[in-house]
Amino acid sequence: MAKPRVRVAASDLRKLVTEMFVAAGMTAEQAATTAEPFVWANLRGVESHGVARVPRYLELFASGEANPAPRIEVRRPRPAALILDADRAPGPLALTLGMRAAIEAARETGVAWATVRATTLSGAIGYYTSLAGDAGMVGLGIVAGMPNMGYHGARGVAVATSPLSIAIPAARHPALILDMATAGIALGKIAQYRAEGEQLPAGMALSADGEPTTDPSVAKIPLPLGGAKGSGMSLAFELLASGLAGNPVVPAYHSGTPEGRRHRQNATLIAVDVSAFLDPGEYAATVDETIDAIKALPALDGAEILYPGERGAASYAERARDGVPLAPKSWEELSQAAAGLGLSVPEPVEQPGA
Amino acid sequence: MAKPRVRVAASDLRKLVTEMFVAAGMTAEQAATTAEPFVWANLRGVESHGVARVPRYLELFASGEANPAPRIEVRRPRPAALILDADRAPGPLALTLGMRAAIEAARETGVAWATVRATTLSGAIGYYTSLAGDAGMVGLGIVAGMPNMGYHGARGVAVATSPLSIAIPAARHPALILDMATAGIALGKIAQYRAEGEQLPAGMALSADGEPTTDPSVAKIPLPLGGAKGSGMSLAFELLASGLAGNPVVPAYHSGTPEGRRHRQNATLIAVDVSAFLDPGEYAATVDETIDAIKALPALDGAEILYPGERGAASYAERARDGVPLAPKSWEELSQAAAGLGLSVPEPVEQPGA
Repeated sequence: MAKPRVRVAASDLRKLVTEMFVAAGMTAEQAATTAEPFVWANLRGVESHGVARVPRYLELFASGEANPAPRIEVRRPRPAALILDADRAPGPLALTLGMRAAIEAARETGVAWATVRATTLSGAIGYYTSLAGDAGMVGLGIVAGMPNMGYHGARGVAVATSPLSIAIPAARHPALILDMATAGIALGKIAQYRAEGEQLPAGMALSADGEPTTDPSVAKIPLPLGGAKGSGMSLAFELLASGLAGNPVVPAYHSGTPEGRRHRQNATLIAVDVSAFLDPGEYAATVDETIDAIKALPALDGAEILYPGERGAASYAERARDGVPLAPKSWEELSQAAAGLGLSVPEPVEQPGA
Repeated sequence: MAKPRVRVAASDLRKLVTEMFVAAGMTAEQAATTAEPFVWANLRGVESHGVARVPRYLELFASGEANPAPRIEVRRPRPAALILDADRAPGPLALTLGMRAAIEAARETGVAWATVRATTLSGAIGYYTSLAGDAGMVGLGIVAGMPNMGYHGARGVAVATSPLSIAIPAARHPALILDMATAGIALGKIAQYRAEGEQLPAGMALSADGEPTTDPSVAKIPLPLGGAKGSGMSLAFELLASGLAGNPVVPAYHSGTPEGRRHRQNATLIAVDVSAFLDPGEYAATVDETIDAIKALPALDGAEILYPGERGAASYAERARDGVPLAPKSWEELSQAAAGLGLSVPEPVEQPGA
């Protein structure tokens, strides 16, 4: 039997999280913008970046690592090159504004690249690239942050699980949204192996001591996807996102200074106006046909052929209708964080045992 | 003992391949441009894209799949969006011209995206991104082509091993050049397992019948890197490169028509002018420091910590000095192809047994 869950209406969650960010010092407009990617992640089934993470942002505000009242500045040094200085804004705010600026510029230049500098926890990167998709554009995004992954051939924590996202609008189908970390395995997946008492495949993780292990009870550091490929992507993403932002994270982290270990992230967001290249209707039809061709392939025994983002789109439709399921523990923590800000939580649409 | 090899001076190889392409109908300038990426690949140690592949291009000319006298047109519908119609030019010509056009546009717009339409066999994609690196820019590239890889959950050939390359200029260090296929394993690597009588790791390949296998003697179709991640990247790259070019490959391939299986490729090449974002000297110093931080990490037992492109740069230095080693069989095939065009080959600087 599946664990009992609380279900909360998405609109109620959106309102609650917005109010929490206002109570934490953000303006109403910034708070609403910040709340959206959390709720989107829950709707899409990406619990790891959902509202359960909101208390962590409140901690970052408290520690000074994130700034609830950022003065965000967007510069455009060249027609297709933008730099958004996030002033330690929460990632969901900074990256949303970064992609909006890229979309606006891309209408004119065809393609625009926004470097988002000095943000904090970026959340579900697929949300920001999907904003381009919603505007009929192609969106690409990468995030670089604090090292939490191994590097091929090295011992211990080296680089970040820096994700890549690509969103591509379709017509009949929901948009293709690739959203992948450069690690071979997620920490949540290691926990699943542990719960099921199974060994990890080789090459997936290191112990806290930095040694390779297949024992999920001691695995603490994920290894890069495909060894040199994943660590090469992560290193390149650090140099693209953090390097071009003039805010390098990896060398600072390994310098051994406390300042070097202070949480921060940088991102690159690219918007590509499809209409610069061809008729958007023709493009969307090609995307549909390509997805159809993949979905029509013969499946391996027991497998389902999915395109990136397909499962998330199905989850979104179901949860937008029936409410967002939350683990009781997450709901309790969110409720406590809300209470700490003098706010009460909405009535769930469904409760365990109710 | 290593197999005996022929060594040929890089300048001699460059001249020979240029003459071969002229004899096959290209102009002197186009032939010289086309020859360069092959020689570069040999110098960098990427034999799979070196001069041994030249006879294959002659076949593509003969079959009409490639065009030795292409009329290449570059359009610039928006300031940062370029479309190069390759007219079935060999990839090395079309992608070089595509990246040159992107670099020129990026000086003005900061970032430029060139879609290369209807090219053939692209060769070593790292060469084209490195052109941006040589110009002090960051270069990104992806290629999409004929399906030759599985798709996560599907049986048989589905998508292409579409590569990603990112080149990042440094100062003290040679440039970082990531150049990776979206497959988990290369066909050449499968051959190595076969030669050594070892089983493949699980999840790396399918048999010709499309069934998963760990037997290198029946493994014919590589599987994507990390399952859904690699196939998601490949599919997204097809929609970026082929889709925006209005020249889709994947749905045509699976349509079952002979025209749909006719060889063609498309590419996306992006140039990013570092000076739009920050002082290029500061950027190069950050790249150096980041590489230093990675190289200084403690290594796992028996491992060497390398950054992407490091080994290729060392190979380049050695081979530029001592000549390019070629397998005797490759040298013989190249000599025969040259003879077929009425050309004789240069004297190697070193011969097996000499």
